[in-house]
Amino acid sequence: MSAAYFDEFATVRYEGPDSTSDLAYRFYDKDRMVFGKRMEDYLRFAVCMWHTFCWPGSDVFGAGTFDRPWLNGPQDESAARAKREAALAFVEKLDLPFYCFHDVDVMAPAESIGEFRASFARAVDHLEELQARHGRKLLWGTANLFGHPRYLAGAATSPRPEVYAWGASQVRDALEATHRLGGSNYVLWGGREGYDTILNTDLKTEQENFGRFLSLVVEHKHKIGFKGTILIEPKPHEPTKHQYDFDTQTVYGFLKRFGLENEVKVNIEANHATLSGHTFEHEIAMAGALGVFGSIDANRGDPQNGWDTDQFPNSVEELTLACIEIERAGGFTDGGFNFDAKVRRQSVDAADLFHGHIGGVDVIAKALLRAEAIIADGRIDAFRAERYAGWNGELGATIRKSSLAEIADLAVAQDLKPAPVSGRQEWLENMLNRF
Amino acid sequence: MSAAYFDEFATVRYEGPDSTSDLAYRFYDKDRMVFGKRMEDYLRFAVCMWHTFCWPGSDVFGAGTFDRPWLNGPQDESAARAKREAALAFVEKLDLPFYCFHDVDVMAPAESIGEFRASFARAVDHLEELQARHGRKLLWGTANLFGHPRYLAGAATSPRPEVYAWGASQVRDALEATHRLGGSNYVLWGGREGYDTILNTDLKTEQENFGRFLSLVVEHKHKIGFKGTILIEPKPHEPTKHQYDFDTQTVYGFLKRFGLENEVKVNIEANHATLSGHTFEHEIAMAGALGVFGSIDANRGDPQNGWDTDQFPNSVEELTLACIEIERAGGFTDGGFNFDAKVRRQSVDAADLFHGHIGGVDVIAKALLRAEAIIADGRIDAFRAERYAGWNGELGATIRKSSLAEIADLAVAQDLKPAPVSGRQEWLENMLNRF
Amino acid sequence: MSAAYFDEFATVRYEGPDSTSDLAYRFYDKDRMVFGKRMEDYLRFAVCMWHTFCWPGSDVFGAGTFDRPWLNGPQDESAARAKREAALAFVEKLDLPFYCFHDVDVMAPAESIGEFRASFARAVDHLEELQARHGRKLLWGTANLFGHPRYLAGAATSPRPEVYAWGASQVRDALEATHRLGGSNYVLWGGREGYDTILNTDLKTEQENFGRFLSLVVEHKHKIGFKGTILIEPKPHEPTKHQYDFDTQTVYGFLKRFGLENEVKVNIEANHATLSGHTFEHEIAMAGALGVFGSIDANRGDPQNGWDTDQFPNSVEELTLACIEIERAGGFTDGGFNFDAKVRRQSVDAADLFHGHIGGVDVIAKALLRAEAIIADGRIDAFRAERYAGWNGELGATIRKSSLAEIADLAVAQDLKPAPVSGRQEWLENMLNRF
Amino acid sequence: MSAAYFDEFATVRYEGPDSTSDLAYRFYDKDRMVFGKRMEDYLRFAVCMWHTFCWPGSDVFGAGTFDRPWLNGPQDESAARAKREAALAFVEKLDLPFYCFHDVDVMAPAESIGEFRASFARAVDHLEELQARHGRKLLWGTANLFGHPRYLAGAATSPRPEVYAWGASQVRDALEATHRLGGSNYVLWGGREGYDTILNTDLKTEQENFGRFLSLVVEHKHKIGFKGTILIEPKPHEPTKHQYDFDTQTVYGFLKRFGLENEVKVNIEANHATLSGHTFEHEIAMAGALGVFGSIDANRGDPQNGWDTDQFPNSVEELTLACIEIERAGGFTDGGFNFDAKVRRQSVDAADLFHGHIGGVDVIAKALLRAEAIIADGRIDAFRAERYAGWNGELGATIRKSSLAEIADLAVAQDLKPAPVSGRQEWLENMLNRF
Repeated sequence: MSAAYFDEFATVRYEGPDSTSDLAYRFYDKDRMVFGKRMEDYLRFAVCMWHTFCWPGSDVFGAGTFDRPWLNGPQDESAARAKREAALAFVEKLDLPFYCFHDVDVMAPAESIGEFRASFARAVDHLEELQARHGRKLLWGTANLFGHPRYLAGAATSPRPEVYAWGASQVRDALEATHRLGGSNYVLWGGREGYDTILNTDLKTEQENFGRFLSLVVEHKHKIGFKGTILIEPKPHEPTKHQYDFDTQTVYGFLKRFGLENEVKVNIEANHATLSGHTFEHEIAMAGALGVFGSIDANRGDPQNGWDTDQFPNSVEELTLACIEIERAGGFTDGGFNFDAKVRRQSVDAADLFHGHIGGVDVIAKALLRAEAIIADGRIDAFRAERYAGWNGELGATIRKSSLAEIADLAVAQDLKPAPVSGRQEWLENMLNRF
Repeated sequence: MSAAYFDEFATVRYEGPDSTSDLAYRFYDKDRMVFGKRMEDYLRFAVCMWHTFCWPGSDVFGAGTFDRPWLNGPQDESAARAKREAALAFVEKLDLPFYCFHDVDVMAPAESIGEFRASFARAVDHLEELQARHGRKLLWGTANLFGHPRYLAGAATSPRPEVYAWGASQVRDALEATHRLGGSNYVLWGGREGYDTILNTDLKTEQENFGRFLSLVVEHKHKIGFKGTILIEPKPHEPTKHQYDFDTQTVYGFLKRFGLENEVKVNIEANHATLSGHTFEHEIAMAGALGVFGSIDANRGDPQNGWDTDQFPNSVEELTLACIEIERAGGFTDGGFNFDAKVRRQSVDAADLFHGHIGGVDVIAKALLRAEAIIADGRIDAFRAERYAGWNGELGATIRKSSLAEIADLAVAQDLKPAPVSGRQEWLENMLNRF
Repeated sequence: MSAAYFDEFATVRYEGPDSTSDLAYRFYDKDRMVFGKRMEDYLRFAVCMWHTFCWPGSDVFGAGTFDRPWLNGPQDESAARAKREAALAFVEKLDLPFYCFHDVDVMAPAESIGEFRASFARAVDHLEELQARHGRKLLWGTANLFGHPRYLAGAATSPRPEVYAWGASQVRDALEATHRLGGSNYVLWGGREGYDTILNTDLKTEQENFGRFLSLVVEHKHKIGFKGTILIEPKPHEPTKHQYDFDTQTVYGFLKRFGLENEVKVNIEANHATLSGHTFEHEIAMAGALGVFGSIDANRGDPQNGWDTDQFPNSVEELTLACIEIERAGGFTDGGFNFDAKVRRQSVDAADLFHGHIGGVDVIAKALLRAEAIIADGRIDAFRAERYAGWNGELGATIRKSSLAEIADLAVAQDLKPAPVSGRQEWLENMLNRF
Repeated sequence: MSAAYFDEFATVRYEGPDSTSDLAYRFYDKDRMVFGKRMEDYLRFAVCMWHTFCWPGSDVFGAGTFDRPWLNGPQDESAARAKREAALAFVEKLDLPFYCFHDVDVMAPAESIGEFRASFARAVDHLEELQARHGRKLLWGTANLFGHPRYLAGAATSPRPEVYAWGASQVRDALEATHRLGGSNYVLWGGREGYDTILNTDLKTEQENFGRFLSLVVEHKHKIGFKGTILIEPKPHEPTKHQYDFDTQTVYGFLKRFGLENEVKVNIEANHATLSGHTFEHEIAMAGALGVFGSIDANRGDPQNGWDTDQFPNSVEELTLACIEIERAGGFTDGGFNFDAKVRRQSVDAADLFHGHIGGVDVIAKALLRAEAIIADGRIDAFRAERYAGWNGELGATIRKSSLAEIADLAVAQDLKPAPVSGRQEWLENMLNRF
C-alpha cells in the first residue's frame, strides 16, 4: 500500500534556476563543487522519520488531518513495515543521501521491554535491507525517551531508577542499531530532561544522574567500536517548563563538568536556537568557538509564536548567515542537515511533503552558494580582521602577557584615549545583501 | 544641600504588621532570628548608588523628571560629594547595613585616565569617612566599563587593546578601592561584553580575551589580599543583542573553561533571570547545584515587557521560592540582597525612594519568614525526598555503579514496568499557598 | 465504573484557614457575604469538561498518562455516558454550582452530521437528568469547531462554505441545548478562526464571513428566546499563527464593525490575556471600560513559556488585582469563573483533580476577600480619584467643552507650567501588599 | 559647520545591481515604472529628523557616541539652525523626496509656552526656506508629547488638564505648521498615552479624553483646510507598560468608538508590529481590510530582543510580503515609507548614515520589484482565489442570504462531508522564493 503512496512522483532532479517544475531542485546540484566538496557531501541532507512519516497532522487542539495509509489501521508490524518502506522510498525520490529516526518511529509499538526489543530488532533488520535497496544511509539514530508515559518525569533525570534503567536499555539498543546501520552520529535529545516545578525537583541529583548517563553512553560507544559522534541537542523549553540542555553554552558547561567536552558535540536546531533567545547562526558560531559543533536540525520557528513550530526553512537570508558560520566552524565531519521539520497541518497532500523538502533543500543550497561567494569575496572577513588587528600589534601582544597591574600601569603611562571607531553594521548588512 | 534632601524623613524602624505608618517596616525586624541568624545578618540588604542617586528619571523617550539637587548643576567634585553624602545618609535612614557602587557613580566625571583616577581616589577617601560616620558598609564595588563612549564595543571583549587596557585600569582601582573600603565582594557585570551583529564579531577572540581578563582580576585579588568574592552578573540581552554572560549555566561553563569555577561566583538579578527565560528561583537553585551561588540583585521585571525594567520586588509569592532556594544553597556568605531597582519615572518625590526600598525590604523579609516556616514544616521537602527515594534503594545503588549494558541487562532481566507516579504539582502549590 | 472513580473522596467543604485537610476549602465559604452577595453567587465557579474529563494527559511529545476509566475503551455511547456521570459527580463533590462543555466533550464521536446530532441529543437528554440529580447548573455551552479535520482552516472563516454550514449546524444545536439546559451564556472561542500564512489567506473575506456568522448566532438566540449572554473568547495565537480575536480591544472593534457591541461580550481567559501582551487585570478593566465584560476563564500561564499552559490559578497577588477590576466592572451578571485549567501531565491521580480545583477556588476566594478589604479601605481608590481631580475642576470642565484652538489659546493665555506630580506606584504597591 | 558635515559625499544615484560603489542605489531607480507609477512616486521615501539628526548615540546604559557638530554645543537657535540645514542637505544628498519631524526635533528647546511657540515658529520659517532650497517635501509633521517631564503621565491621557492643554497647544501649532509646509499627513504617536500601573489609572477616563482629543484634532484639521491625512501610529508597549494604541485592530476599534474611522488612518511601523505579536505584513493587510491603511514607518526589530530597536530594514524577503500587501491595500495615497530607523550606536561615522538609508531604500525597492513580479505572475493570487471559490458558487451564495437555522438545515439535508483540502503553504513559500 505505502509503496504506491509516492508512485505518482518522479525522482526530484536538479533543473537549474529557470526550471518551471514545482518538483525540481533549482539550486541543489549535488555534484556541483562548493567549498571544495560536492554539494551533496557538504550538506549531507537527511529526512526525519517522525514528522514526515509518524505524525498524522494532529495538534493540541485537533485530530490528525493526513491520510497516510500506514497510519490508518492498527499499528502492528505490517503497518510499521509499510511505514519504513514508504520512508526509504521517499528519501530516494528526493535523491537525498540520509535519513534519521527514533527507535519508536520505525517499529510497531510494544509495552514490555522484551517485546519492545524484539520489535525494534525486526525494524533494524528491515532498515538494513531498505538502506541497501534504496541506496540511502543513516545520518543518525536516537531513542525516544519521552513519548511513553513511563518517561513523564524524564528518563536519565527521572526520579525513579526503574525509568532510568528502561532508558538505558533503549539507548543501548538504539546506539547498537545505529552502529550496525552505519549511522554517522548518535543523538540524545533530552525530551523530558528538565522540570515543570522546582517544588518537586532535585536539580542537583537530576543533573548528576544525567551526567553519569551521558558518560555511560560514551563508554558504551567506545566499547562497541562505534566511531560516529555522540550529539546532544539543546532546547530551552517544551515540553517541560525548563529543559536542562538550554542552549549550546549550557551544554558546553555540562560537558565540561563531566569531562565530556571532547567526546560529545551539539546538534543545533534552528527553532530551538531562536526559542532560547539566540539566532541560529549564533548557536553555530558559539559551538564552533567552543569546539563542539556537530550537526544541524534544519527548520525554522515563527517569530511571533512561542513554541516549536518546526516549519521547513525558507529564508535564504537567514541560512546564508548559518552557512557562513558552518564553514567557519570547519564544516560538517559526521554531521549534516537533517530536516526536523513538518508540513503544516493543512498541507494534507503527499505532494506537500515534496514541496516542504524541496523548498528546504533549495533554500539551504542557495544560501551555501551565497556563503561561498561572500567568503570568496573576502570584504566582510577583511573588515572583521582589521577590526581586531590591534590584538596582533605590539600593544595587543604586550597585554596578552601582562598582569592586570601591568596593563593598568601601561594605560596610565601612555595616557590612552581610545576614540570610538565605527562597527559599520549597516555597511556590513548592505554588503551581505549584495550577494 | 543634599544633606537636607532627606531631612524630613525619620529613620525607618520595625513597627510590626499592624503599623499604620507608610514609612515603617512591617516584617523586617533586623534582630529577629531566622534560620539561626539575625535577619539583618541573613539578608544583608544593600542600596545601590546608580538607580537611586545617579539616575535622573530619564528614559529613551524623554528627559529626567526627578529633582535631585546633586544632579541639577554641573557635575563637579562638589556635586559628587553631595551625592555621596545624600546616599550614605539615605542608607542610614533606611537602617540597612550596605551599599554598592560603580566607580563612576561616586565620582566627578573625568576624561583623561589620570584625572579619572584622581577623581575616583577623592571619592574613595570621602566614602571611607562617610562609611564610618553613618555606620554603613560596602557590599560590593564595581567598575563601569560600559557607559563611556570608549566602551561602545565592550571592554574586556573590545576589538581594541587600548580599550581593554583602560578597563584594566578602572578594574584595578575599583577592586583596590573595594578592598580598602572593606567590601565583601567585587562584581563584574559584562555591560557591553557581547555583540550586536555577528558580521563584525570574532566570538572566539572576544571570549578568550574575556576569559583572560577575568583570570587577571582573580590573580590581582589574591595579590592584594582581598578576601571577598569575585562575582559575575549574568544577563542575556541589553544593551547588546547578545550578552556573553547569558545566565548562570552559561557563566558556569565559561568559568570551567578558564579554570575559574572555584574562584568566581554569580550575582543573580531577578530581572535578568526572567529575561533569560528562567525563573529567579531557577537561577538560584542552579547556582547552588553548581556551587557558584554568590549574591542577589533584588528587583523584578515586567512579564509583558521585554526589557530590563528594574522595578522594586513586590511579590511575596515569588520571593518565597527564591528564599527557599537561597537557604538550600547555604544562604549568603559574602553576598546579600542589593536593590538593583529604580522607582518609576513618575515617582518623582523623595518619599518614593523610601516607598520603593521599604516595600522591597518588607516583601523579602516576609518571604524569608514564609520560607523558614515551609522548611520547618517539612512536608514539601519530605515529598521531594520521597520522590527520589528509589535512588537510595538497592536498584538505585546498583545502577550508580553499573555500566550502560549492565543497567540495560538488569532492566530486561527484571522486566521493569514502571507505571506513572504523580508529581503532585497542584498539591505542592496549594501547600505553599498555605503559609 | 466512572461513578466509582471519585467514591473515595468526600464532598469538599469549607473548614477555614486553619484546616489541616488537603481536601477542604480554607477561604471559599460559599455563604459568606462579600460585596453584598453570597460568595457562591458572586464567584459562580464552574468546572470545565474538556481538560478535566476529556484530556488523557497527552501532549505534542507524548501519549496520555492518566488512567480515566471512561477514556480507556472504545469511545462509544457507554463511555460518553460514564464520562458525563463522572463529571457531574465531580462537580457535586467539589460543591461548585456550575459546569461548562463543548458539544464533542459530552457525546460519543460521530462522523456524519445526522449521527452527530443524534449523539449530541442523547448527551443533552442525559445531562438534563444529571443536572437535576446532582443539583448543578450549566454556566455555558459551546460547540467545538476546531478539533475535527474538517475545520483545519477554520469554521466561520473557512475558505469553504460546506465547512461553514457544518459549523452552523453544530452552533445551532449547541445553542439550543444550552438554552434547554438553562445555561447562563453561550461561548464562541474562535479555535481556528485565524490563519497560518497570509499567502493563502483572504483576511477581508474571512472577517466578513466571521462577522456575519456572529450576527446569525445573535439573531438565532433571540429567535429561540435564549436570554443568556453570547460571549467571544479572545486569544492571540495558537493553534493558528494569528487568531482573529486577538484580545478584548480587538474583539470590541470587531463587534463595533458589525454592530454587535450591545449583543456580545467577552469571556476573558487569564492565560490568553498574558499571551497577548496584557495582564489579566488589564483585559478585565478594558472590557469594563468598553461595556463588554462578560465572564472569566480562570487559569494561569507560565511567564517563561510561550504557549497556553492552562495551569490552575495559584497567585493570590495576581487574582486580587483581577477581582478588584471585576468588581469595578460591576461584577458578574451571567458570567462566572470557569476553570479552564488542567492538572499537569505528571498529576496522574484522581486526587490531583481535587487539588487543582481546590487550590484554584481558594486562591480566588482569598483574592476576592482581599479585593473587598482594599475597596472598603478606600485609600487606593481615593488616591486614584485625587489624581484625576483636575478633570472635575474648572479647567477640566472648560477643556471638555472647548475646541482645540480654544484649549490651546487658554494654555498660552494662562502660561501653563505643569510640574511633574508623583504617580506613587511604589506606595500603591506597598499599600496593596498590606492586605 | 553642519553644512560641511556631508560635503565629502556625492549625491547618491542609481547605478544598477552591478555597481561597485558603496554609496549608490542598486535597485532604487526613481524613474522606473512599477505598478504603473514612477518608483519615487510609489514609495515616497522620507528621512526622519529624530533618529538621524537629534539622537547622539546614547542608550540607557551609556552616553552618546556620535560626533555631530550641531549636537556638541549649547542647544540654542544657532545649533537648531545648523541641524535643520544638515538635515535637508542630507535628504537631498540621498535624493529622497521627503522628510518628517516632531516639533522639538527642529527647534531650540524652550520652557515656557510662549517661548516654545516662538522657537518653533522660527524653525518653521527656516524649514520653508530649506524645503525650497533643497527641493524636498514634508511627508508628515507631528508634535512630541512625550519627551518633556510634563508629559510623564501622558498628554491627551494625562490625569491633569493642564498637561492636556499644553499638548493641545503643541498639536495645534504642529498641525498648522504641517499644513503651511505642505505636509501630506499629520501623525499622532501616543508616546506616553498608556499606563504603567493599573493601580493609579482610570482607563475609562483616559480613553475618553483621548478620543475627544482626537476628535478635536480632526475638527481643527477641517477648520484650517488641511487636506492631508491624520494618522495614528500603533505601538503595544514602551515607554509605558501598556500603550493604548496597541495595534491596528485596536486603533480601528478606538476610531469606531469615537466615530472617526473615516477620518483617521494608521501609520504602521514594522518594529511596532512585531512587538505587538504580529508580522509587519499582517498589520498592513489588516489596515487594508479595515479601510484604514495610511503610511509606513520603515525599520525592523530584533526577533530576540524585546524592545524597539529601530534598525534599518534589511530583509528583502520580509519586505516583499509587505509590498504585496501595500499594493493589495491600494498603495499609498498621502502616505509613504518613512525611515524611522537609527544607525547602531557603534556606527559613529557620517558614512554610516548613508549606508543605513541606502541599504533600506534598496531593500524596499528590490522588494517592490519582486512584489510586482509575483502579482504579475498571478499564480499565488490564483491559488488564493481558487481556495475561496466556493463562496462565489451556489452554496456560498445561498449561505450568504440564509439564517443560521436555514444554513444548518441545509447542512443536514445535504449530509455535507467536507474532506480536508491542502492549504499548500510550503508550495506557496517555494513559489515566493522563486522571485
